[in-house]
Amino acid sequence: VTTFAPIFAPPALSAAVGDDAWVGAMLEVERALVEAETQLGLVPAEAAALVAASCRPEHYDVQSIVEHGRLGGNPVEPLVRAVRDRTGPEGADWVHWGTTSQDVLDSAAMLVSRTALDMLLPDVDAVASACAALAEAYRSTPMAARTLLQQAVPTSFGLKAAGWLVAVLDARALLVAVRRDGLAVQLGGAAGTLGMFGETGPELVRLVATELGLAQPTLPWHTNRVRVAELGSALAITAGVAGKIGLDISLLAQTEVGEVAEPAGAGRGRSSTMPHKHNPIGSVLTVACARGAAAAAATLTQSMLQEHERAAGAWHAEWDALSRALLYAGGAVSSIRHVLEGLQVFPERMRDNLHASGGVPLAEQVSFRLAEHLGRVRAQQIMTELAGHAATGGATLREALLADERVTAELSAAEIEAALEPAAALEAAGPLVDRALERFRGENA
Amino acid sequence: VTTFAPIFAPPALSAAVGDDAWVGAMLEVERALVEAETQLGLVPAEAAALVAASCRPEHYDVQSIVEHGRLGGNPVEPLVRAVRDRTGPEGADWVHWGTTSQDVLDSAAMLVSRTALDMLLPDVDAVASACAALAEAYRSTPMAARTLLQQAVPTSFGLKAAGWLVAVLDARALLVAVRRDGLAVQLGGAAGTLGMFGETGPELVRLVATELGLAQPTLPWHTNRVRVAELGSALAITAGVAGKIGLDISLLAQTEVGEVAEPAGAGRGRSSTMPHKHNPIGSVLTVACARGAAAAAATLTQSMLQEHERAAGAWHAEWDALSRALLYAGGAVSSIRHVLEGLQVFPERMRDNLHASGGVPLAEQVSFRLAEHLGRVRAQQIMTELAGHAATGGATLREALLADERVTAELSAAEIEAALEPAAALEAAGPLVDRALERFRGENA
Amino acid sequence: VTTFAPIFAPPALSAAVGDDAWVGAMLEVERALVEAETQLGLVPAEAAALVAASCRPEHYDVQSIVEHGRLGGNPVEPLVRAVRDRTGPEGADWVHWGTTSQDVLDSAAMLVSRTALDMLLPDVDAVASACAALAEAYRSTPMAARTLLQQAVPTSFGLKAAGWLVAVLDARALLVAVRRDGLAVQLGGAAGTLGMFGETGPELVRLVATELGLAQPTLPWHTNRVRVAELGSALAITAGVAGKIGLDISLLAQTEVGEVAEPAGAGRGRSSTMPHKHNPIGSVLTVACARGAAAAAATLTQSMLQEHERAAGAWHAEWDALSRALLYAGGAVSSIRHVLEGLQVFPERMRDNLHASGGVPLAEQVSFRLAEHLGRVRAQQIMTELAGHAATGGATLREALLADERVTAELSAAEIEAALEPAAALEAAGPLVDRALERFRGENA
Amino acid sequence: VTTFAPIFAPPALSAAVGDDAWVGAMLEVERALVEAETQLGLVPAEAAALVAASCRPEHYDVQSIVEHGRLGGNPVEPLVRAVRDRTGPEGADWVHWGTTSQDVLDSAAMLVSRTALDMLLPDVDAVASACAALAEAYRSTPMAARTLLQQAVPTSFGLKAAGWLVAVLDARALLVAVRRDGLAVQLGGAAGTLGMFGETGPELVRLVATELGLAQPTLPWHTNRVRVAELGSALAITAGVAGKIGLDISLLAQTEVGEVAEPAGAGRGRSSTMPHKHNPIGSVLTVACARGAAAAAATLTQSMLQEHERAAGAWHAEWDALSRALLYAGGAVSSIRHVLEGLQVFPERMRDNLHASGGVPLAEQVSFRLAEHLGRVRAQQIMTELAGHAATGGATLREALLADERVTAELSAAEIEAALEPAAALEAAGPLVDRALERFRGENA
Repeated sequence: VTTFAPIFAPPALSAAVGDDAWVGAMLEVERALVEAETQLGLVPAEAAALVAASCRPEHYDVQSIVEHGRLGGNPVEPLVRAVRDRTGPEGADWVHWGTTSQDVLDSAAMLVSRTALDMLLPDVDAVASACAALAEAYRSTPMAARTLLQQAVPTSFGLKAAGWLVAVLDARALLVAVRRDGLAVQLGGAAGTLGMFGETGPELVRLVATELGLAQPTLPWHTNRVRVAELGSALAITAGVAGKIGLDISLLAQTEVGEVAEPAGAGRGRSSTMPHKHNPIGSVLTVACARGAAAAAATLTQSMLQEHERAAGAWHAEWDALSRALLYAGGAVSSIRHVLEGLQVFPERMRDNLHASGGVPLAEQVSFRLAEHLGRVRAQQIMTELAGHAATGGATLREALLADERVTAELSAAEIEAALEPAAALEAAGPLVDRALERFRGENA
Repeated sequence: VTTFAPIFAPPALSAAVGDDAWVGAMLEVERALVEAETQLGLVPAEAAALVAASCRPEHYDVQSIVEHGRLGGNPVEPLVRAVRDRTGPEGADWVHWGTTSQDVLDSAAMLVSRTALDMLLPDVDAVASACAALAEAYRSTPMAARTLLQQAVPTSFGLKAAGWLVAVLDARALLVAVRRDGLAVQLGGAAGTLGMFGETGPELVRLVATELGLAQPTLPWHTNRVRVAELGSALAITAGVAGKIGLDISLLAQTEVGEVAEPAGAGRGRSSTMPHKHNPIGSVLTVACARGAAAAAATLTQSMLQEHERAAGAWHAEWDALSRALLYAGGAVSSIRHVLEGLQVFPERMRDNLHASGGVPLAEQVSFRLAEHLGRVRAQQIMTELAGHAATGGATLREALLADERVTAELSAAEIEAALEPAAALEAAGPLVDRALERFRGENA
Repeated sequence: VTTFAPIFAPPALSAAVGDDAWVGAMLEVERALVEAETQLGLVPAEAAALVAASCRPEHYDVQSIVEHGRLGGNPVEPLVRAVRDRTGPEGADWVHWGTTSQDVLDSAAMLVSRTALDMLLPDVDAVASACAALAEAYRSTPMAARTLLQQAVPTSFGLKAAGWLVAVLDARALLVAVRRDGLAVQLGGAAGTLGMFGETGPELVRLVATELGLAQPTLPWHTNRVRVAELGSALAITAGVAGKIGLDISLLAQTEVGEVAEPAGAGRGRSSTMPHKHNPIGSVLTVACARGAAAAAATLTQSMLQEHERAAGAWHAEWDALSRALLYAGGAVSSIRHVLEGLQVFPERMRDNLHASGGVPLAEQVSFRLAEHLGRVRAQQIMTELAGHAATGGATLREALLADERVTAELSAAEIEAALEPAAALEAAGPLVDRALERFRGENA
Repeated sequence: VTTFAPIFAPPALSAAVGDDAWVGAMLEVERALVEAETQLGLVPAEAAALVAASCRPEHYDVQSIVEHGRLGGNPVEPLVRAVRDRTGPEGADWVHWGTTSQDVLDSAAMLVSRTALDMLLPDVDAVASACAALAEAYRSTPMAARTLLQQAVPTSFGLKAAGWLVAVLDARALLVAVRRDGLAVQLGGAAGTLGMFGETGPELVRLVATELGLAQPTLPWHTNRVRVAELGSALAITAGVAGKIGLDISLLAQTEVGEVAEPAGAGRGRSSTMPHKHNPIGSVLTVACARGAAAAAATLTQSMLQEHERAAGAWHAEWDALSRALLYAGGAVSSIRHVLEGLQVFPERMRDNLHASGGVPLAEQVSFRLAEHLGRVRAQQIMTELAGHAATGGATLREALLADERVTAELSAAEIEAALEPAAALEAAGPLVDRALERFRGENA
């Protein structure tokens, strides 16, 4: 469904959102419909059996069917003709009976979405677990927090991972809700009135929903696209969360930072030119997927303005956008899962980096100690001056503090050392990590 | 916040998302923080009182503060300086104590969002009520359903309104959930570690959340933007639902269709040139707002990739996008509410239109009657032929049916007349309307 | 490259932007490179011949190569390995010599774009010709102009078509410029320094550009993506122009308007359910394509922020977006070409519709005649009153004018009739049509 | 026009795209129209003088006018009423004579765009000059090129700046073309037919265009939005180019990289909390602006599907998007100009970083020397092994090379040293810089 799809997502997921899968799902809908109609006595059992037996994807040339769909603007009409050709006159009358193209295509979209969601949710779970494991393992490992790409103050790698974890849990909740409530059968007939079924219409909808394992909607939803936009949004948010992790990792893995590295492995991250490169390719692909998923979701939201009982273009624009939202979200979580599960973490480099620029990220915590004696405004003035020198390659912060009489008048050498210890800034970080892990365990219980 | 904002949304909402409102909310956050800190004994009571008294928007020149924010990239730093200038040395040390710009701006964003949501939710409720009233009043009023902008089969205007209603209820559920759970305080200090508060950090977060009436998040969410993207998505979906209604109404109000008209009123829909125009301007603005909200939400989702502990640009891109998402969603529901509450409905024109093209939208229901005798494929062949003639200006469908021996061999004249009655296609439509109304009443109980 | 691609675009175009075409273009780049290197004496002639002979797509299993690209994040590395395997040791050293994955992929993107542009430009020309033919044929055919979907004043169908024509010419100019100047070879080596080629670098770039028929860029453009964004923009604008035509036609073809119809043909616009439907499916697909192309172009523009010498995700996000921009733009012009070349136009229905609502679209022109006697403000007041009655089903405008003493005191019955003639509003329309046709002929000369 | 606009763009530009500026431009259009009409004898000279005198912005309460525009969906109708009130009966008839709201608003949009472009083009020129100066000054300053955020091979800072320069020149060409040809007057009357002007219509258009200093379009362009989308695209591309520079600088300025720093200055990049921070805030704001401009341009492209002779929503969605495209593009170039003109560059740090990871970015150039003796495949195997050791903290590349018998069998110690010199990889870089500078000088001549 996209250029070089198997680069972005696992082959199974690429296949699950491809044309063959869509057409297979359409056949599944036609089959479920005729069987439900039989239960209600609307279709003779033999005819239904004949139809159902014809609703197998292996009987059809999917690309040929899709190509014939250009005349009518969707693949259902040629598919129905092909199925009728196959059943022959005994079944033809009962194929697609009482329904319309959009019923079949929309219900199929729900089936395709379900399959893809069922592929990607385990990856989401695994990403959460991997984040939790990192949060726990590195609960007290100091590193520089970075704001606007500058070292700011100490944080812990555990807290960083806990932040990832919470975002993953937030996204998972959206996906789980959509998976549970949002995937509903579409069945309304030509224009959503269930016209041909009369009073039995609602019962038929219930039976088809049950048959397909989809929810029963309040009404046919031909041009109420909330569920489609909501699904797209949940997928884009999930991919966005994965992408944020990928972005962080690609930044932490920079040659000059070197605090983490992606798992090595046969050929992973290999350059076609440069022998030494170990590219953070899992993270890079995750970022690419997050961009793709966000764009696809935007198309779905922008397609909500659908005319009357079937949209003149906006509906058609959904198909590929939905496939891409599923593909890219799945690709993002799959890639970042692999990265996180084998992530190499270098605590020493984290500590070294904290001290690399003369220790300036430790300035804030010293400033607050000093403020206890001199007031915050005065303390901040002094620290701005000393940290400025340190940042521009003068004495390190430690040296400057120990040499400054304004400071030593208030703090002993031991107090200065203590104030410079990253742990001094991390008293709350541990409990915050625990809070995230507690939520993780609660939601996995 | 947007060009000609008061055209798109009510003045109160325009104001609620403007710079003054944002800065007012920031001051509210600073006030709540210092008061919570006092409760924990972190700040002396007198100093806190001084700070709190200074946190009133009327003391500050908002535009000047914003302009000074260009140097540092956000308006908080100059605001804090202004507040410190006002409190004088007795309070200065305790202004903004232990927090950071993003804490203040993100928490303010939540307050701005809450205010706007509290303005727009009553409009959403009113839209739902107006749709429900239309669904009930026109439960059995036949009209043409239109697919791909062509008359398809009969539906009822009540069912059309019920479709709008269900979409509104779907969107409302998203908004209500975000309003209830999604608006959380942001408080993490320089980089999300609550560094300066040590062990008291989490308790302080709880107190500030309580003070502001916001939820307490699992962790500081500086670069976990799920809640922002989710809020944007719920707003865009709401605007999209309103926009779909607006699109339908603008199409139904076309000169050549004339089935509904927007409420007339002094100057509404007036043209600057053409005396006769009665433009569906409420619907048009709703559509424009839906487009704007979708674009804003897309920006929010695309901004989820935020670096480390504070993003280098993606965070800044959120501010206006959030304001616009709120403004446009509110504008959309406000406009369409006004349209729906005074909508003029013309049932006779609906009926006339059904018969205008020789009655072709009634062909399907006749086809199904005929299929009971001739099989579906054969029946459809005959009806395609007769409807084709009718659609191109030959005999009307009624005339053609009564004159066709293949038909009259199977159906009596009375049966033909009955088959041509729109109500014949609407047996399921009434119960579907009831189903939607039942849900509406259940959710409003 | 997209779900149900052959529904949206001709099979040949779908193929031209598919994975096979991309990989084929990559091989073409590798071939051109080695041949240019041979000209400069960098590679032995026999080795180059061996490599060139191996650069044929039929030798490779494209999907397998793409799947292997997941490890390294792009398909070039496995492709290069496959080519080396094929050449054996005699050629392996000279395959991909001195270049990098991005060189090959970006240059291939330009080749893919050129092929697709060469497919779609003739369709653009044909669309222009079809619009010109309609503009000429219906130069004086009155119809209602519609603003905000309401009948406004008379226009001519010729002027409407001339408006389409000018937009098509505007878009064509963008495409032609991009086709001529924008498609440049990419060759920079590992990071855009032409490092391995030393002083011969620039000359090699010139030779490869010549070999491939691409432009020579000022510098390697690894992370200068202006040309990619500009190409996307030109494609989206072209699709947008086609989409605007499609939107107009789908609206004019509405059952209640009936002023045009898409060409009929075996199965075109057929419904899977409704025998009478003649859906404007070419226009609908054009609109869908315009949406898709705009979304793809937005992704390309949003991908311009590329890190350093190769982007960590934004580059990867371009590939599918570019394929879709090409596919959808090509699909849009192909669909609308077919629609326009066979468009059925119904001048009588156009005239009838002008008079359908009591003739209100003629009010403005009467108002201006009356203003010559009563002043504009007074004339407009009278006409608003009379047109309002006519629009709501009272007397027609003609009847009302002839019966109103304020009017008849100023205008004779003959003058009233003349003022009501649509042609009275169309004096400038003909010359405007001529202006557009003159430009069309000038640009086609 | 956006939340905190003066943070993103200079106050003058913020004002130039604000509501007051739009309304001022509308008045300018009304004035130009009446004066042109007078030249053609359509309006009495005294009345025209009265109208023209009333077309001054200081006479009107812009916000009140905009608020009254909600009823009609645009601000022109209340503005026209206000002007008529001011002229009194002697002028009222001639205000807005023969034109329509969209004429006035679209022409005003062109005037607003011109003003903003004239503000931002000098900044674009200055950005080009600053890039050229950097390219020249650092033509031979080695630094690490980085691909996928990993050090790759040596490049020069001059070549990096030259790459920025070429992108700026590419973008400037687009802007200059749009400024010169794309800004056209809109004048078509109620629906683009110039109905009220009859045969004098085209001449009137010419006169108004001349009066306003805008181009004369082939036809009225009410719903041909190519020029709007093209303008948006040129702005977004310009902002994207600036954003790419900002992204590079924010990455180079990272604490751990430290190769450049933004200009220091009173309060610039100051944190509200952390005394030591020197945030790359100009780059950050540039990135934020680039995101905003891309989103705005996407809205403009997506708004091209406009119904008939005036769009029912898509037109209205353009206004704010155009303002934002202008604001953000102007903000981006203004911010990055300031950054570039005062950029601090640290060549020593660049050189240090090249050697920081054991010298691995120099591996490729050594590999190519070695390949002259051992063949490329074999050389690459050896270098992958040695560089891998160096990258993971073993012996540096130099040490490893000097100690490896496979290497020393082919290369002398002096040859190894020469191969490790960054300049060895930069033979083509200097001429490439010259090529870019030559183009710069040529385009500025």
